[in-house]
Amino acid sequence: MSSAFDHVSADLSTSIEELSDLLRIPSISALPEHAGDVREAADASAEALRRVGMEKVHLEQYENGNPVVRGDWLGAPPGAPTLLLYGHYDVQPPDPLDEWISPPFEPAIRDGKIYARGSSDNKGQFFALVKGLAALFQAHGSLPVNVKWTIEGEEEISGRSLFKYLEDHKQELRADAVFVADNNFPRAGLPAVLTGLRGLVYTEIEVQGAAADLHSGTYGGGAPNPLNALGWIIAGLKDTSGHVTIPGFYDRVVDPSPEEMESWRRLGIDEDRLLRDEIGSDAFFGEAEYGILHRLYARPTLDVHGIRGGFSGDGSKTVIPARAVAKVSMRLVPRQDPNEIFEAYRKRVVELATPGTRVTVRALSLDQPVSAPVGGRGVQALARAFRRAFDEDAVFVRMGGSIPVMAAFQKHLGVELIASGFGLPDDRLHSPNEKLDISQFEGGIKTTTALLEELAG
Amino acid sequence: MSSAFDHVSADLSTSIEELSDLLRIPSISALPEHAGDVREAADASAEALRRVGMEKVHLEQYENGNPVVRGDWLGAPPGAPTLLLYGHYDVQPPDPLDEWISPPFEPAIRDGKIYARGSSDNKGQFFALVKGLAALFQAHGSLPVNVKWTIEGEEEISGRSLFKYLEDHKQELRADAVFVADNNFPRAGLPAVLTGLRGLVYTEIEVQGAAADLHSGTYGGGAPNPLNALGWIIAGLKDTSGHVTIPGFYDRVVDPSPEEMESWRRLGIDEDRLLRDEIGSDAFFGEAEYGILHRLYARPTLDVHGIRGGFSGDGSKTVIPARAVAKVSMRLVPRQDPNEIFEAYRKRVVELATPGTRVTVRALSLDQPVSAPVGGRGVQALARAFRRAFDEDAVFVRMGGSIPVMAAFQKHLGVELIASGFGLPDDRLHSPNEKLDISQFEGGIKTTTALLEELAG
Repeated sequence: MSSAFDHVSADLSTSIEELSDLLRIPSISALPEHAGDVREAADASAEALRRVGMEKVHLEQYENGNPVVRGDWLGAPPGAPTLLLYGHYDVQPPDPLDEWISPPFEPAIRDGKIYARGSSDNKGQFFALVKGLAALFQAHGSLPVNVKWTIEGEEEISGRSLFKYLEDHKQELRADAVFVADNNFPRAGLPAVLTGLRGLVYTEIEVQGAAADLHSGTYGGGAPNPLNALGWIIAGLKDTSGHVTIPGFYDRVVDPSPEEMESWRRLGIDEDRLLRDEIGSDAFFGEAEYGILHRLYARPTLDVHGIRGGFSGDGSKTVIPARAVAKVSMRLVPRQDPNEIFEAYRKRVVELATPGTRVTVRALSLDQPVSAPVGGRGVQALARAFRRAFDEDAVFVRMGGSIPVMAAFQKHLGVELIASGFGLPDDRLHSPNEKLDISQFEGGIKTTTALLEELAG
Repeated sequence: MSSAFDHVSADLSTSIEELSDLLRIPSISALPEHAGDVREAADASAEALRRVGMEKVHLEQYENGNPVVRGDWLGAPPGAPTLLLYGHYDVQPPDPLDEWISPPFEPAIRDGKIYARGSSDNKGQFFALVKGLAALFQAHGSLPVNVKWTIEGEEEISGRSLFKYLEDHKQELRADAVFVADNNFPRAGLPAVLTGLRGLVYTEIEVQGAAADLHSGTYGGGAPNPLNALGWIIAGLKDTSGHVTIPGFYDRVVDPSPEEMESWRRLGIDEDRLLRDEIGSDAFFGEAEYGILHRLYARPTLDVHGIRGGFSGDGSKTVIPARAVAKVSMRLVPRQDPNEIFEAYRKRVVELATPGTRVTVRALSLDQPVSAPVGGRGVQALARAFRRAFDEDAVFVRMGGSIPVMAAFQKHLGVELIASGFGLPDDRLHSPNEKLDISQFEGGIKTTTALLEELAG
């Protein structure tokens, strides 16, 4: 089993050189003038797959979208599982340029770290997967499981090409699990596996009162005021203890597993630092009966994001606005259904409408929560792989936000999600001086070899 | 007593010609290019006062303000009361010009009405006062009461010159009552006397949560949200039956007098028309135990005018804003004290603050309500004068909004306010084809002669 690891270490300098070649391509998907570079990165990614032994490697393009790189190796023994691998070859713009110590697209190694835009997010990470396959081929001449690849070029611009591709190629992409390595360790030396991400129901509540804006002197006391009405609606959706008061809202919410709760204790979050330095307030707000990580990871919430209507500039305009709109979203946790929650929410909002107002509730997005339970075969295999590669038990963590690609894999392919990553919290994604620690890169390659071996059982 | 009325009728065509000369001056205070016209109107107003027999007529100018026209006649018999008269010689811009049937500054008479900008608001009305004095002089060679005048040129631009003048000349302007004729009959044939105007406490509530905007995916469930906090605050200030829930808010509120209640019944408001056509909703909102006029005239209210903070544009931004500001005002009724109410409000808002937020409450304006009780000597004198001039009992009405000049007279001079006017609801103030009915102009002149006689007792 250790022979693949040996090849990883022996080939590390070559791996770094190959990664550096990829990092030199300024494949900034947000900037049209870099369209050629984006295409070059797609070609380079495809070439990397070919070089490592993938077959039928090709690009799939949707209209003017950036191509999805595809390639498979399906030569595993009969009955072996199939693992889908993911990456993205596009990167964020590098501004502000003058804050970079070395230029963003000229990879530089300092103190055991590779500095370049895309080093951690995500070229360095998906390239670790590629090199993991290479090490296995070198050690055994084959892979222990079948492998399929999708590498996209629109992750940083929330593009839809990959999602369309997944929807159109459900059969072709059938797999037992998908491994997405686009995240980081909570701290150096502590690998983490994601077991859940919250979903999102984003809505607009429109309250119509009078036919036109009215003067509060003339009509105050008689006319409906949509902003006051929104006050009652907002106060009627969540109480001051942080509990959402929509009937049925918590019905499907389940407690995190004991393994997850234990993991969160191991993380040893400094709550005071989180409150003072990160949030910058003198008190948390929320369901006090749950720990802070439990609330941020595994409890659903409701937040108001903005309210439009009337007059909010400087000075004193005494308008009763005809109409007001509030933007309100709910974060959902695994097993909550966005459509069911939206309907219960809509019903509650309409019930809260006061005389003289007409309330309209619109859903702007309905994103499923993502669940990757601790007991899953792939998740357990990754935990064992991390143990072998990093000599430490992984923690099981969750994310409070959504990562659309993870939800899309679950939605379109119905596969088990193995979500993790090899970055560190100080990698400065999307910022100047993005870097990837070479030890994390090497550990990531080893973890990949071990993951495939563990999956093969 | 009827001899003054005889002179009014005999001189009516001259009065119309003189008024027309004043209406020809485009004294638009909002437009700098009309500064010369504004000054010309001030001079013409002063000249009108001189012509009618006022003494020491002069202009008072504050910095770059438009002059206040002053002039007195203090020759009444010893012990006779003193009446302060008010008017404004500035007018609104006439746009849109192409909707005028005859040009705004070329007075035209059609169907017994004078069409011109300023005919009703306010040149025609204060000129009726001037001509009332003229008729009394013609009939008796003197006036039965002392008279002082202030005619300002900043009413349409909310200028402060008159207020400063009042503050600086309290002694010089001492009087028993001030007569402000800048309003209208509720309908033709039905004179009205104003007995109260609501005051205004206009505030801003600022809620600070986190130190910077946060992502609701990462922090939702743990971080304070100032917009949700404003929802609880707004809902905690007024209940869904329209009752303000600030402790002590209603303590000083008194019921309107029986005469006022009877007047409001006489007005015979068409509630369905008010609701459907004027407000444009399917239900009133407010304290259902009070009639709609009672609520609009004589009940205090609380309205939210706008909320700033977070994201309220198109699309779905999942921000938990660091800060949000709500603009909230209260309309007060006679005897409520703006400072006392603001303090009770501030206390209540601070109590409603939720964990993790810091709330600041600011007063942007604290305007006293205005009270002109039915039993006042001047109000009763005007009621009798209306009876003589229009052959109809006046109704006692109130206004839901503030008229700053009325509050200023009460605040700076402490005089009884006689507030009324000779316009009609279809005079189209501030709109194209503003007009004044000649019968109302004539009745206004007669009412003025009768008012002075009634005040003299």
